[in-house]
Amino acid sequence: MCRFLLYKSNSPILLADLLTRPAHSIIMQSFNCKLRIDRRRPMNGDGFGIGWYDEPRTNGCIFTSTLPAWSNINLQRLAEKIKSALVFAHVRATTGDTATSESNCHPWQFGNLMWMHNGNIGGFDRIKRRLQNSLREEVYLSLQGTTDSEHAFALFLNMLDDPEHRDEFSHAELRQAMLRTIAQLNQWLDEAGVEETSLMNFAVTDGQSVVCTRYITSAEYEGASLFYSSGSEFRSDPETGQYRMVKANKREDVVVVASEPLTYERSDWMAMPTNTLLVITPKLNVHLYPIRDKYWTNEKRHA
Amino acid sequence: MCRFLLYKSNSPILLADLLTRPAHSIIMQSFNCKLRIDRRRPMNGDGFGIGWYDEPRTNGCIFTSTLPAWSNINLQRLAEKIKSALVFAHVRATTGDTATSESNCHPWQFGNLMWMHNGNIGGFDRIKRRLQNSLREEVYLSLQGTTDSEHAFALFLNMLDDPEHRDEFSHAELRQAMLRTIAQLNQWLDEAGVEETSLMNFAVTDGQSVVCTRYITSAEYEGASLFYSSGSEFRSDPETGQYRMVKANKREDVVVVASEPLTYERSDWMAMPTNTLLVITPKLNVHLYPIRDKYWTNEKRHA
Amino acid sequence: MCRFLLYKSNSPILLADLLTRPAHSIIMQSFNCKLRIDRRRPMNGDGFGIGWYDEPRTNGCIFTSTLPAWSNINLQRLAEKIKSALVFAHVRATTGDTATSESNCHPWQFGNLMWMHNGNIGGFDRIKRRLQNSLREEVYLSLQGTTDSEHAFALFLNMLDDPEHRDEFSHAELRQAMLRTIAQLNQWLDEAGVEETSLMNFAVTDGQSVVCTRYITSAEYEGASLFYSSGSEFRSDPETGQYRMVKANKREDVVVVASEPLTYERSDWMAMPTNTLLVITPKLNVHLYPIRDKYWTNEKRHA
Amino acid sequence: MCRFLLYKSNSPILLADLLTRPAHSIIMQSFNCKLRIDRRRPMNGDGFGIGWYDEPRTNGCIFTSTLPAWSNINLQRLAEKIKSALVFAHVRATTGDTATSESNCHPWQFGNLMWMHNGNIGGFDRIKRRLQNSLREEVYLSLQGTTDSEHAFALFLNMLDDPEHRDEFSHAELRQAMLRTIAQLNQWLDEAGVEETSLMNFAVTDGQSVVCTRYITSAEYEGASLFYSSGSEFRSDPETGQYRMVKANKREDVVVVASEPLTYERSDWMAMPTNTLLVITPKLNVHLYPIRDKYWTNEKRHA
Repeated sequence: MCRFLLYKSNSPILLADLLTRPAHSIIMQSFNCKLRIDRRRPMNGDGFGIGWYDEPRTNGCIFTSTLPAWSNINLQRLAEKIKSALVFAHVRATTGDTATSESNCHPWQFGNLMWMHNGNIGGFDRIKRRLQNSLREEVYLSLQGTTDSEHAFALFLNMLDDPEHRDEFSHAELRQAMLRTIAQLNQWLDEAGVEETSLMNFAVTDGQSVVCTRYITSAEYEGASLFYSSGSEFRSDPETGQYRMVKANKREDVVVVASEPLTYERSDWMAMPTNTLLVITPKLNVHLYPIRDKYWTNEKRHA
Repeated sequence: MCRFLLYKSNSPILLADLLTRPAHSIIMQSFNCKLRIDRRRPMNGDGFGIGWYDEPRTNGCIFTSTLPAWSNINLQRLAEKIKSALVFAHVRATTGDTATSESNCHPWQFGNLMWMHNGNIGGFDRIKRRLQNSLREEVYLSLQGTTDSEHAFALFLNMLDDPEHRDEFSHAELRQAMLRTIAQLNQWLDEAGVEETSLMNFAVTDGQSVVCTRYITSAEYEGASLFYSSGSEFRSDPETGQYRMVKANKREDVVVVASEPLTYERSDWMAMPTNTLLVITPKLNVHLYPIRDKYWTNEKRHA
Repeated sequence: MCRFLLYKSNSPILLADLLTRPAHSIIMQSFNCKLRIDRRRPMNGDGFGIGWYDEPRTNGCIFTSTLPAWSNINLQRLAEKIKSALVFAHVRATTGDTATSESNCHPWQFGNLMWMHNGNIGGFDRIKRRLQNSLREEVYLSLQGTTDSEHAFALFLNMLDDPEHRDEFSHAELRQAMLRTIAQLNQWLDEAGVEETSLMNFAVTDGQSVVCTRYITSAEYEGASLFYSSGSEFRSDPETGQYRMVKANKREDVVVVASEPLTYERSDWMAMPTNTLLVITPKLNVHLYPIRDKYWTNEKRHA
Repeated sequence: MCRFLLYKSNSPILLADLLTRPAHSIIMQSFNCKLRIDRRRPMNGDGFGIGWYDEPRTNGCIFTSTLPAWSNINLQRLAEKIKSALVFAHVRATTGDTATSESNCHPWQFGNLMWMHNGNIGGFDRIKRRLQNSLREEVYLSLQGTTDSEHAFALFLNMLDDPEHRDEFSHAELRQAMLRTIAQLNQWLDEAGVEETSLMNFAVTDGQSVVCTRYITSAEYEGASLFYSSGSEFRSDPETGQYRMVKANKREDVVVVASEPLTYERSDWMAMPTNTLLVITPKLNVHLYPIRDKYWTNEKRHA
């Protein structure tokens, strides 16, 4: 199990203020993950990746490493220099026996789209070939690694029209492609008779809109945790040094979505309901959409 | 372009005597490769791998790294300790834009089989999907990376009967599977209209027999270089310190095949003819077989 | 804070049976360290090292990596092949801001001596120059990194007569050098007015004898944990698959010392008393010696 | 032997236009170094580092790696995003048996000063202790690795007044400290009776001024090569795609100093005379100063 974080704002934030300085940053989460479902491997030390955009309609940049995030001195240094208004970050714990490899580090890029995943697709091996065969050639050949997460991205790309050459997508289009991706995965998993549960917390952006999900192939259990928060600024308190989401006015200038709250003010963080899709529009409006398929329920789920 | 070396003998050699101490070892070849066809990237600094067997009918062991071989201190230390009578070694230069990754380092293993490749399959992208679709499930799912070399191994495995659970193969069986692999690749490349030339210097072993090829999809040009030598011992001269193939008697106790001669005694090294398959039997007999397909010629080839 | 393990026996053990297969191996300890004093960084993911000897009176071999032990596929593979009757293993968590570096990975070697350390020398910076200036030239120049641990080894070497060219030391000699090393460190720390506490769990071997300490520069607190166990064999139970120390007869054929018990049978593990030195002789006798200096006490210490 | 490059201009350049895209960039130099003195290890594949400043009077940022520069995908990606008007870049070949380590990668930083070195200090081991003992405590303790290059930087820092807390230095002050550093090294090397030749191509900057040297401890031989070029812009020709130094007017807006010319227009590159110091002022004026010590000569030197 892994962890991710995404940040979108009106004005750039120094990556250090998001990734390395906060006491409960995603880097620290790689030490001490209290909310994890999978207890077998209690930390995320198998590499990490960050992605960010510096200007609209340009491709993002990605920095990945198979070294643990917390001891990566290049990450520490770059985070003190790079500013961005749209950031993806991911820390990784390998779940199998594969070598830790940079080609298996999130996030992935294709054109100006960026993708990351927290969770896993149960029984993925049984639908892998079918998934690959469904892909258009340019998407199929873009695969660099072997993970379920990257293959889910490929399937998502396949739902879009010419993702290689476009620099912009409407958020409605991204949302539809995300829903179709999940639906398609579910159909194949069903047809293959897979009974393992899948956790599909996906996040995608084109540098302007963001779409992400908290999703589980179950009507009984909660999905992997996902929280969001918004406000006017994410910064440290000058007195305590603690980071928090400042809500200086009614405008929302910052939205953060993360596997775990980044600050100790739990009231600032809302849990995304399980099997929900969240959209952040280019203008920073946040919309939540229930994903009403056979795993939808109004009943209380088990944690 | 890469480089490889394989060694088989009656008694174990210290890896250092093969890999790190000789002045013209495969590690030094990674500095100074005079015989290379592809001049664009004049060294092999993108990782390496070694594989070796310690006892018959056991799986081999593999050590790979994305650091250059010449500065890998773990390799230096292990080579001073490990002895083996059957060794594969490979140094790698990436040919594309992909990240250097341990899952793309030769050699690969499957059961007790080990495989490496020097060269490249031209236009591989155009047959990749077809190749994958031809694979049995357990072979398909064993793919860890994205290289043509590993996919060629998968195709080879697909030619064998139950490679996952057997610990021994006859050399005739390995030879037939190798020839069928090359023939199948050629057929698909033809059908896909690929015109780029492929260099298929492959090597495979089950820990007892070795089969390797020097092969090019051309009747005009020489393949990537491949040399072999045999004798009673490969060791350094006590006076000069130079390594050489000692021929103390008529018995052949050691066979070495390498992309370039490992010693300065060129007369000790025979060039394998282009489009030939070489077999080393468990008893260290060496057989050469011409590969008589449409790329076979008796004419002189261009270098 | 780090963790270490040392193993000495009459017959070689497969490294996998010691390092990677046991459920509570040192690799697993790098996930879940319940007995650690320093809670700030709850795992040991900043690299590891193993050292082993294959024959008496030869130098040992070392394999180190800055990747976490649990995801290092080379470690997994090598551990399935290498056997040794004398093994050191260390997992590391950096305590400062320094880059994780292979030259800062334990164990270190000098001639046929091997050294590792669990703990830290408080205020080391204030005695570093003095320590370096006390070293003989060949020891001073052998320093590869910047850690207190490696410098403590250098000081230890300086207490020995010609460690560079000898292949054997009596255990009494190693023990005396260890005690003099600790005494010298203490004297310098005192003279520099250092008040921070030091944890000096050191281990050293020449391939035949082993000397290790559980030591703290305090008469009030317990040192970093250290346990030992002995028996006739360390192996997995054929029924449960659990590893344990088998005590088939009264002979002691195996001695293990480790920062935490390797098995769930706590009764098999004795805690080394704080400020004690343990010797394992070449014939596998175990002796404990109290270190009677100003930090010695018969009172109960605080955990 | 290594290679370095430094770039200073009035307006920021995209790092890719300097480091990764030019056909004869420092990255390509790591493949094919025709002008090297030391032929034993014909490439620079043992790591690299880049350093850059984004605003005056701030600390620079450093990105280093022990992977070869040419296969480092993070470098490729970052270079497409980061712009700077003051860049240091270094590719490295280890000269000894030490592990390749990030703490031994150039450039180094101290406060807002940055340093790199091409060459080596012959017989450094014989003056290392004396050099360390001459250092003020904060400089001594800042040493992270073991190289002669980093120690030369420490000595340079020791010549400055409070380098830790200042954000600006006059170029005269940097120049004097550089000359004193070289003179001090020479004095110690002489007193130690060292006869090996030293190559001291040093470069230092505070983010505004740059001082670098081409220097050898010999009156007979040329030092390691160093070239410089200036003009109004360093960019690719829109027609040929070749990079070159454009000289659109008489103003000098760009100065580049590099171990080898970065372009094929040799007339654009001036060789720095051996035993010369070059200063680039904050306003981009370039001054050359002969280093008139006992190794100065008006005679022709041997290459």
